[in-house]
Amino acid sequence: MYTIEEIQKLINDYIDNQKFEGNPAELYAPIEYILRQGGKRLRPTLCLLACDLFGGKVEDCMVPAVAAEIFHNFTLVHDDIMDQAPLRRGVETIYKKWGSDVAILSGDTMLIKAFQYVLNTDNKYRYEVFAELCKVALEVCEGQQFDLNFETRDDVTLEEYLEMIRLKTAVLLGSVLKIGAIVAGADEKAQNAIYNYGVDLGMAFQLQDDVLDCYADVDVFGKMIGGDISDNKKTYLYLYALSVASAEDEAELRRLFQMPKGRDEDKINKVLAIYDKYAVKQEALAHIHKYFMSSETILAELDVENEDRKKVLRDYAEYLYKRNK
Amino acid sequence: MYTIEEIQKLINDYIDNQKFEGNPAELYAPIEYILRQGGKRLRPTLCLLACDLFGGKVEDCMVPAVAAEIFHNFTLVHDDIMDQAPLRRGVETIYKKWGSDVAILSGDTMLIKAFQYVLNTDNKYRYEVFAELCKVALEVCEGQQFDLNFETRDDVTLEEYLEMIRLKTAVLLGSVLKIGAIVAGADEKAQNAIYNYGVDLGMAFQLQDDVLDCYADVDVFGKMIGGDISDNKKTYLYLYALSVASAEDEAELRRLFQMPKGRDEDKINKVLAIYDKYAVKQEALAHIHKYFMSSETILAELDVENEDRKKVLRDYAEYLYKRNK
Repeated sequence: MYTIEEIQKLINDYIDNQKFEGNPAELYAPIEYILRQGGKRLRPTLCLLACDLFGGKVEDCMVPAVAAEIFHNFTLVHDDIMDQAPLRRGVETIYKKWGSDVAILSGDTMLIKAFQYVLNTDNKYRYEVFAELCKVALEVCEGQQFDLNFETRDDVTLEEYLEMIRLKTAVLLGSVLKIGAIVAGADEKAQNAIYNYGVDLGMAFQLQDDVLDCYADVDVFGKMIGGDISDNKKTYLYLYALSVASAEDEAELRRLFQMPKGRDEDKINKVLAIYDKYAVKQEALAHIHKYFMSSETILAELDVENEDRKKVLRDYAEYLYKRNK
Repeated sequence: MYTIEEIQKLINDYIDNQKFEGNPAELYAPIEYILRQGGKRLRPTLCLLACDLFGGKVEDCMVPAVAAEIFHNFTLVHDDIMDQAPLRRGVETIYKKWGSDVAILSGDTMLIKAFQYVLNTDNKYRYEVFAELCKVALEVCEGQQFDLNFETRDDVTLEEYLEMIRLKTAVLLGSVLKIGAIVAGADEKAQNAIYNYGVDLGMAFQLQDDVLDCYADVDVFGKMIGGDISDNKKTYLYLYALSVASAEDEAELRRLFQMPKGRDEDKINKVLAIYDKYAVKQEALAHIHKYFMSSETILAELDVENEDRKKVLRDYAEYLYKRNK
């Protein structure tokens, strides 16, 4: 049984020892660049935690865990082109630093590399891991396309938004946990349960992003609040507010979100005032709590040999749940 | 043993019966759009031809053959973004019709779909097919990046150019033939021989593209000649001309290729005059012939149970060799 620190050290050491160099340098330098940045490495961490939970050998899970991390970073590289994002993790994006052609191609290369990693998993579960990664990869693309579609639609419902973040973010957390379970030899019922657990966690995780963007402690958060409002992003907060606001407030909110993108403190304050009027933050937190409790129930009901192992996963989930950045 | 027409019918029927629909439509409609266009379907054809050559069941090879075709189309979709190409196969590109965001994402989806297809190959050779597809996919990305790099370099050598087209175009032909051999159960020596055969064929095929662009019969070719010259593309013809021209002609050629991109009959005529002066076309045709003869030798030396089967592949290669569009 591993502690969370041990798991994270295993992952960081393993990734540090991987070489992503190659020729031409223009293709591979961006891959080194983004994979060396670290980040939370949430997906490989969950993958190994699930493997350990079901009594598997975490070393056997390292390759698919890293594949998932490479895959996740591929999605960031391509998303940043579409968002024309200059910064990520406090440094220049590949798109900004090398241009969109390099970002497209090095992203493609990362996607292929992710699949190539899976080739190195044990023959026993290689097929299942592969199938899971293909399935979830398609869903993540679908989620991203829905997200793009929402930018130009003004009739997005809360349900559609939840389905979009399920595809774009939550299912990958479910899948990495499931892959950990597969490698550990857990049965199908357990695989599905831990998958559902991860989806709940992912939903909570993404909704927290929405809340933090508006209500984080700036000093801890590390960036200015209201970024989503500046970008006219149709988040949970915005869509919930629309669904409960008076006709007048709804019209005002829609008007504010039709203003050109860009930082405008007055606009942010007006939007936040409407959110406050309808207790939008409280509703979002309650929704997050619901997902978190649902995940907790799944974990509690899970049949594992060693109940103590649940504690590591539970603590990690709680750490994510209580994060303030 | 199949005729080339039978092989092509099998492929066309199979692809026609595949569904690439899905939700959101913005993601999947472009995939339907490009895969329904047809084109030469050179890669799946070669894959099945190799399988048949080595006495395999072509039905077993259909899934990886289609995977290769989807993969190839993925590269076209992303290349068209980088080239800002409005037309392909006489119709609007995905980039032009739906924009670059959709082209990036639907391209990504096609790449994943290609790998997902491979999952459906028989367990016996699934792993080998996967490994081959991953390897060649990375090489194709490398080739494309070299091609991009060449646009802004003025010291590209003929050798570098040949290596670029080897990676960008030729190795995929080698790999699809090798995959056909793998599925047919051919031994490693035969797999490598047919791979090398395909690389030679691919080199000849790409160099022919360079020649046709300048010297095709316009009525047959279906588009105006001199497109590469208008685009300042550093083709074999250009690089060979630079390597043999007088200092004066070299300077003139470089000057012409530094003019803004765009159609200019006067520029095209000047470039072609220099090419003619140094018999560039003849040299290119001789080079193509060399690759073709090398491929012929490999095929002749290949140890297969039924020598008659070589004829179908030989005829198809000759048809490609003698193509005028």
